[in-house]
This record gives sequence, C-alpha cells and structure tokens, in this order.
Amino acid sequence: MCEANAYLVEGDETNLIMEAVDTVEPEEDGVRLVSIFGDQKFIKARIHALSLVEHKVYLKA
Amino acid sequence: MCEANAYLVEGDETNLIMEAVDTVEPEEDGVRLVSIFGDQKFIKARIHALSLVEHKVYLKA
Repeated sequence: MCEANAYLVEGDETNLIMEAVDTVEPEEDGVRLVSIFGDQKFIKARIHALSLVEHKVYLKA
Repeated sequence: MCEANAYLVEGDETNLIMEAVDTVEPEEDGVRLVSIFGDQKFIKARIHALSLVEHKVYLKA
C-alpha cells in the first residue's frame, strides 16, 4: 500500500499530523486529508512538497 | 516503490504526463515533477488531488 504520512512544516518544526493518508485535496483555504481508514482532517495549509517514494506529504501553513 | 503517475486534467480530458513520479514541488506558477529516474518536468498547473493508494497525482491547469 502506498499511503503516506502527512507532516505540517512550521518554521523549523515538522510535525506528523496524519498517518496512512490516501487522498489529499487542496481546497479554497486549506487541504483535506483522508486516511485509508476513512478519517478526515481539514488543515489550513497548502501542499509544500511530496516525496512519494518516502511516503511523505509536507504541508505548510 | 510508491512512485505515482501524474495526470493533467483539462476539461473532460485526463492525460498522463509523467510516470514514476517521486517528488512533486509546487512553485510560484506551476509544479515541478521529478521521477525516480531523475527526469524533471515543470508543468504550469496546480495540484488538483492526490490518490496515493492508486498511485495517482492529478494536476489541473
């Protein structure tokens, strides 16, 4: 399975905000994350970078 | 390996623009894609959605 972990980058800190992310949908004022378990989170941030081979999605506020 | 295929959504059409994408970096006026082979493409588009379990990155112009 190729789900990823989502991290929020804030200044020097990078914090894990959701594991096992399947879908990522940028919206007007944030990003919607949905995990493979169906959990949803809406984060007021934008996609900063993806590193798919490392299973990482970086968001930045 | 969890690289993905990148697709460009234009109206009703969805076209494959790059296979085996590793990193995706949104920039000022587009998105930089880098494949696991080191190939790079810069696309004047934004990230529309990710479906990581399906290995798909959707961009929209």
